[in-house]
Amino acid sequence: MGKGKIVIALGGNALQDSKGPATAEAQLSVVKRTCEYIVDIIEQGYEIAVVHGNGPQVGRILLASETAKDVTPVMPFDVVGAMSQGYIGYHIQQALRGELKKRAMDIPVTTLVTQVVVDEKDSAFSNPTKPIGSFYSEEEAKALMAEKNYVMKEDAGRGWRRVVASPIPLEIVEVDTVRRLFDSTVVITAGGGGVPVIEMPDGSLKGVAAVIDKDLAAELLAEQIGADVLLVLTAVDRVAINYNKPDQKELGAMTVAEAQQYIAEGHFAAGSMLPKVQAAIKFVKANPEKKAIIASLYSATDALAGRSGTVITSR
Amino acid sequence: MGKGKIVIALGGNALQDSKGPATAEAQLSVVKRTCEYIVDIIEQGYEIAVVHGNGPQVGRILLASETAKDVTPVMPFDVVGAMSQGYIGYHIQQALRGELKKRAMDIPVTTLVTQVVVDEKDSAFSNPTKPIGSFYSEEEAKALMAEKNYVMKEDAGRGWRRVVASPIPLEIVEVDTVRRLFDSTVVITAGGGGVPVIEMPDGSLKGVAAVIDKDLAAELLAEQIGADVLLVLTAVDRVAINYNKPDQKELGAMTVAEAQQYIAEGHFAAGSMLPKVQAAIKFVKANPEKKAIIASLYSATDALAGRSGTVITSR
Repeated sequence: MGKGKIVIALGGNALQDSKGPATAEAQLSVVKRTCEYIVDIIEQGYEIAVVHGNGPQVGRILLASETAKDVTPVMPFDVVGAMSQGYIGYHIQQALRGELKKRAMDIPVTTLVTQVVVDEKDSAFSNPTKPIGSFYSEEEAKALMAEKNYVMKEDAGRGWRRVVASPIPLEIVEVDTVRRLFDSTVVITAGGGGVPVIEMPDGSLKGVAAVIDKDLAAELLAEQIGADVLLVLTAVDRVAINYNKPDQKELGAMTVAEAQQYIAEGHFAAGSMLPKVQAAIKFVKANPEKKAIIASLYSATDALAGRSGTVITSR
Repeated sequence: MGKGKIVIALGGNALQDSKGPATAEAQLSVVKRTCEYIVDIIEQGYEIAVVHGNGPQVGRILLASETAKDVTPVMPFDVVGAMSQGYIGYHIQQALRGELKKRAMDIPVTTLVTQVVVDEKDSAFSNPTKPIGSFYSEEEAKALMAEKNYVMKEDAGRGWRRVVASPIPLEIVEVDTVRRLFDSTVVITAGGGGVPVIEMPDGSLKGVAAVIDKDLAAELLAEQIGADVLLVLTAVDRVAINYNKPDQKELGAMTVAEAQQYIAEGHFAAGSMLPKVQAAIKFVKANPEKKAIIASLYSATDALAGRSGTVITSR
């Protein structure tokens, strides 16, 4: 190792083929392929930590729990997040270890169950927008709102659905452990953006029903451990403006000022490219001498070598 | 710290009140109380790692998954184990951190998702005995046996149930990370005995449907990290012979030879006190100068001071 520290944010395509089955077995097979690309990065001499998404997985765990509510109690949303960290982390650590072993690289891999502090007063809590779990009838939805204090919204004619907030991540609770392990160990952490917790007056933490954007959590981690590069991996080669239009243009590089201009012009979709660009901006603003890269998982090493991806720099 | 290294194995009573509700909320409240006793141990100057059980939790996660099989794919058993590590580890690390904070002790706490290697040729696999998940009709059971290769057995007139093997743990895959963290950090690891994996010819690991006894996994961890004490915490104050009989006798101490004699005489129930005594014997035989203690969670510090519990020594 020694070429630099990278925090990698993995998008949904790293865990699941959107056209394939939604089974754990299918996930493991996609994860194995993903880990070949990640080990390519490690093989080049970088020290890495991995942050992954968990949207579809959390949705399915919650769906199973809600469907089985008459035979076993429904899991709270923070616990579902922690379960998804175990599920996905286990697959990634097993597959990474296997690929490292295949290349005779003896580097430990571990998943840390990770809590991330959010602000109870974050404005996201007063207007929850992230739909999760099953669809309900209006009657069922109103019963859940009364009984469990859920916020439920009608979802485009498909029925009622629970919505949760997506607050800003403020602090990675287990960051000391990540720091301690980083130079020797591949750490999988802040999975799904971390289990969201708020700080109570006595200093203890309490889980809340919320979803933290995993790109923003990866950015926070990169800041807190002093990473050299924030590497956001997704399904496309480069950030594009005029995306999916005749004049679509892929960007090899952008400055913070340019990126902010593109955001103001509405080029990036919320919940998709927007949080990635926002995370990149935040990292580079906090570390003007460093860089963020948004690239395809499948061209990650090319992107690190400047041959693919979009580099975001302070200027 | 500095008084010695302890691996603590937590029994079911540390996570759940058998008379209380089986909700995650109820678990968290029991875990909070448990963590007061664990922090008492830390406060005395011991370095600790925590191994917990997961039987009821795994049963409920699997039950939910099987109940919801028509709406979302059933999770494989190794993944269910990893999910339970996330679930329980999250609660323990949150509660331990809270209790440490309350006492102004600044010690990091983390949960490692942990795989444990078992031998594919372990004789347990040819005679699986651990019932898990839901009850099925004979017809459903036979379909599952054909379709999913499950082993299913008729369970005392209550219906058919899947059974899995309980093989011997051979190696804790993530032990290097535990060693690296042990002197600075409270590590929660090998939850539920660890996710059981077998080694493939190419050196990679593959999850299997099995249950590893958490006391035996804790013993293996204690050996592998050079712990001074294996502390098996349960609901009773001491190991007893003639348990629940008029001549029941609680033991303050026993040698390995005595313990083996009691086992031969059938004093300890399989799946209950027996694996605890077996784990204690194994640890002390491997480390004749060290000791194992079986004690009540609620008298743990007394037991470490020799005022409660049963101490197992080489002679």
